[in-house]
Amino acid sequence: MAELTHIIDSEVVLAFSTYATIVVLKMMLMSPMTAYFRFTRKCFANMEDTGMAKTPEDKKRMLRVDPDVERVRRCHQNDLENIIPFIVIGLLYTLTGPDLSTALLHFRVFVGSRLFHTVAYILPLPQPSRGLAWMVGMGATFSMAYRVLSTTHL
Amino acid sequence: MAELTHIIDSEVVLAFSTYATIVVLKMMLMSPMTAYFRFTRKCFANMEDTGMAKTPEDKKRMLRVDPDVERVRRCHQNDLENIIPFIVIGLLYTLTGPDLSTALLHFRVFVGSRLFHTVAYILPLPQPSRGLAWMVGMGATFSMAYRVLSTTHL
Amino acid sequence: MAELTHIIDSEVVLAFSTYATIVVLKMMLMSPMTAYFRFTRKCFANMEDTGMAKTPEDKKRMLRVDPDVERVRRCHQNDLENIIPFIVIGLLYTLTGPDLSTALLHFRVFVGSRLFHTVAYILPLPQPSRGLAWMVGMGATFSMAYRVLSTTHL
Repeated sequence: MAELTHIIDSEVVLAFSTYATIVVLKMMLMSPMTAYFRFTRKCFANMEDTGMAKTPEDKKRMLRVDPDVERVRRCHQNDLENIIPFIVIGLLYTLTGPDLSTALLHFRVFVGSRLFHTVAYILPLPQPSRGLAWMVGMGATFSMAYRVLSTTHL
Repeated sequence: MAELTHIIDSEVVLAFSTYATIVVLKMMLMSPMTAYFRFTRKCFANMEDTGMAKTPEDKKRMLRVDPDVERVRRCHQNDLENIIPFIVIGLLYTLTGPDLSTALLHFRVFVGSRLFHTVAYILPLPQPSRGLAWMVGMGATFSMAYRVLSTTHL
Repeated sequence: MAELTHIIDSEVVLAFSTYATIVVLKMMLMSPMTAYFRFTRKCFANMEDTGMAKTPEDKKRMLRVDPDVERVRRCHQNDLENIIPFIVIGLLYTLTGPDLSTALLHFRVFVGSRLFHTVAYILPLPQPSRGLAWMVGMGATFSMAYRVLSTTHL
């Protein structure tokens, strides 16, 4: 049973829980950021959201696409496409019982790359900063996936 | 080992499994609902989906954007952006061994808020009903994330 | 404790880890495929991505929507909408301790249906091939959700 206790109580599980929560919270914060840009740019997707307008013409004018809102939404979508695979593969990776230092390296590189990716997308920073941040995050997830597949004897 | 048995066999895990499955099934049902609106509105995104049309002109006319279809798709996207964080953070929260009653409160408030959110989005109900449903769901997830981070001694 | 050991060390968990990782890697590969189509079609969403253009007019011309890029992105979105529910419900299903052969059947049918779905979407193959692949995948996930809900005594 020593192995089992090791898996559940291990520091790797605690580290994964912490970093997974941080990066999911970061992803969730894109929603209020979208709402902020929608209200400040007065740009909405649903007629019932234009209650701040006084005339029907103003309401219609608020049903539009704004470049700043779309930028935040693309960043949010990129988070969904990259952070969810990290969570799934990171959890399975954690169950393979990696070294704490190796696991921390993967988690920190991924979370750091996604924080930088968001900054690079929203400001925006000149390319290839955003592209590199995306690749580093993908690399960390692929590296964990390799260990999962080689441990489970595909 | 008592603690371990507690974690795996606990009623909190069973409760999480039940509510997570319900809310994921709700999210999945947005796909058939999108298909339903696409067929009844005759509005498709791919040329190969317009087989019901008889002439090439009819086919092209079906490649359009319909406001009802887009509304269902925005609701589905909002589900992805909110329900997936709930699943990830809810699972980690479950592993921190919370009281059953506190955990049930979080799970029920979240699932209830998302069911109401869907109704408010599709009908639609006047604002701020949809906005409040969204905030209540975010609040439940943030509350669980706080416990995860304070338990893992960030 | 025999049951616990069974759950963690079981071949069902190993099988789930393998198939979940494969299907998540497949989903992740849609990102480089989108990038590939964006570069070969010279079609971007952000002004800072158009660095290969020489004149400001060329840059603006690259900020457009391309049907091939949109097709890959719709396929990616469909993956998010279907593969994530499979991962969540498949993990909970794995914890209910199903027979290995039944579990393998579910995992293989789902992963096979999604691989075929991607081929059918990108080529594209004539309908209803893509529609059937989508339905088969949904069916596998619903079947696992049924077992989760009946095991947890909803």
